[in-house]
Amino acid sequence: MIDTRDNAMLKEMLGIKHAIIQAPMAGGITTAELVAGVSDAGGLGVIGGGSLEAPALSKLIRQVKKKTSHSFGVNLFVPWHFEVTTADMARAFDTLKPVYDKLGIEQQPIAPVAPETVEERFEQQIDAVIEERVPVCSFIFGIPDNHHIERLKEAGIVLLGTATTVREAEAIERAGFDAVVMQGAEAGGHRGSFLQEVEESLNGLISLIPETRDHINIPLIAAGGIMDGRGIAAARILGASGVQLGTAFLSTEESGAHKVHKEALSKDRDTPSVLTRLFTGRAARAVRNRFIQEMTGRDEHVVEYPVHRKLTQPIQDASKKEGSTEYAMLLAGQGKNMARYLPVKSLIAKLVGETETFNIEI
Amino acid sequence: MIDTRDNAMLKEMLGIKHAIIQAPMAGGITTAELVAGVSDAGGLGVIGGGSLEAPALSKLIRQVKKKTSHSFGVNLFVPWHFEVTTADMARAFDTLKPVYDKLGIEQQPIAPVAPETVEERFEQQIDAVIEERVPVCSFIFGIPDNHHIERLKEAGIVLLGTATTVREAEAIERAGFDAVVMQGAEAGGHRGSFLQEVEESLNGLISLIPETRDHINIPLIAAGGIMDGRGIAAARILGASGVQLGTAFLSTEESGAHKVHKEALSKDRDTPSVLTRLFTGRAARAVRNRFIQEMTGRDEHVVEYPVHRKLTQPIQDASKKEGSTEYAMLLAGQGKNMARYLPVKSLIAKLVGETETFNIEI
Repeated sequence: MIDTRDNAMLKEMLGIKHAIIQAPMAGGITTAELVAGVSDAGGLGVIGGGSLEAPALSKLIRQVKKKTSHSFGVNLFVPWHFEVTTADMARAFDTLKPVYDKLGIEQQPIAPVAPETVEERFEQQIDAVIEERVPVCSFIFGIPDNHHIERLKEAGIVLLGTATTVREAEAIERAGFDAVVMQGAEAGGHRGSFLQEVEESLNGLISLIPETRDHINIPLIAAGGIMDGRGIAAARILGASGVQLGTAFLSTEESGAHKVHKEALSKDRDTPSVLTRLFTGRAARAVRNRFIQEMTGRDEHVVEYPVHRKLTQPIQDASKKEGSTEYAMLLAGQGKNMARYLPVKSLIAKLVGETETFNIEI
Repeated sequence: MIDTRDNAMLKEMLGIKHAIIQAPMAGGITTAELVAGVSDAGGLGVIGGGSLEAPALSKLIRQVKKKTSHSFGVNLFVPWHFEVTTADMARAFDTLKPVYDKLGIEQQPIAPVAPETVEERFEQQIDAVIEERVPVCSFIFGIPDNHHIERLKEAGIVLLGTATTVREAEAIERAGFDAVVMQGAEAGGHRGSFLQEVEESLNGLISLIPETRDHINIPLIAAGGIMDGRGIAAARILGASGVQLGTAFLSTEESGAHKVHKEALSKDRDTPSVLTRLFTGRAARAVRNRFIQEMTGRDEHVVEYPVHRKLTQPIQDASKKEGSTEYAMLLAGQGKNMARYLPVKSLIAKLVGETETFNIEI
């Protein structure tokens, strides 16, 4: 009764041997070594390209292509509407000032980002993806305008959307995407919610996958809290044709995550990963630390994503530089305590082997 | 690689044919018909006895015994410390006053409950369970004092604890329990968290079960968001030896849930079940409705569980009497949209059949 047809279809569509997708993690985590390593091992490596300027994205794509002849992907952030005034920036700055001071950061107030620059960057990123003939392009935070979808499809690029609810998955299917990544509440990093509020979009995979499966015909890729073959096999039984793992790849040797970030995963198993807007302005799951604790209750001054990130970036950098987890943004899913510190090739071999012990294909 | 030994052991221990436990739901949902119906169909029916006075509990136990010769259980609330002053009560009352008025309820301020009465009731409930030779006793909100555990064990009663984190499961195992119900963030009703804050104890089953399995030797029972054979089979693969389903049984014919409550489950699939302290003073997952929306942001006046429940009870009753979901406490898990309206016997036959299509035993 477990679907094997959709699993085979997904693998063929993505040009991969195992339906294991490495989640796009921004901020330098998805190095060319990680992406190419996953793809060489039979999975789908994905560049977290959302926050890269187009020239940097093109460069990284070319590095990946040099390292692997296998299929891989790029993930982009669909632009969103935001309004941040100079006064908002000043309030956010003032709230963060005590932390700047404590960490000895000489930070000056900065100007808000204009929404148009985000739009422009997105168009240039899409140009880069098409120009470099990237096999797979995935999106988060929404559905791109139809003309973008058409251009990408004409270029033969396979399209993956990201949904956190059945409703969002339906919209992605209607927009003509090839498959949809279902992001369970367990997932680390930013919530992809775009039609419903984050608070309305927090179902765990054990409910989210079967319910979505009953409403959607394109393949589902389960994402969130999956760390080993047990999670993969369970996701397949729930109705997913493939899986996307972030935290599991964050701790690999090839990952560009800072040492402090990697170590934080399994450092203290009683410290959970929690949803917070405090780092970037958009809800993201991160390991709770001093920054989150100190700022909780003062979050009314957080400005919208991605503007707030610019304000907290120097704090995160200073924390990591000191080798401290306390003020760093330690994005991680709920499975963080099960992190394994391995080369990516070994990790994928283990994931596949563990899944097969249940007589389930991935 | 899937465990069959622990599944067999759990079934033998509980005296049941299928390791499907009907979650104890308080407030009249677990009628004798529901509990006996589940047990007759090969699962474990469980009386939600936590809020019943001992004589009412004894009566319900005897009704169940009259209806079934099979094994069944009783769930009790482990007493907790709380302090509610008359001033607290007055503030909570004032906050609810507009709702009383809107629904035409002539409510007078009420006195706080004394913690001792909760302690006393618990002792009498345990006496009733022992006297009536209930085969299985499960607990939520903590671990009972050792002398209670000893007495229950001497009486040959199988003991189940409820945990929301690995740490809590370890404490339950150390206390000598026979098995532990792992409550994922998906679960409807009250959170069982007792060693960690609710906000620290919200892992989904896809992470929670495998991580706990690696630290615990007694059988795990997965609870939260499981609605059909896909969820059951997935939970088994993750490492659970059995499952506990609440919402799935709430909609059965035999369930004593109010019509308004049953219908609310699949009424509007875009309305999520959310965690709220607004109904009872303790975090519980319920379908979001007008009461939750109107009271959000005014929750600083909520008094501790179970005292707050007494203040909102007339509101809930009035709402249901009007046939309205808007002010009722509609406890439900994240799988609510997958509710099936069937007699309990048919539901269990379906659950078992669906699970077996994956060649997995339950």
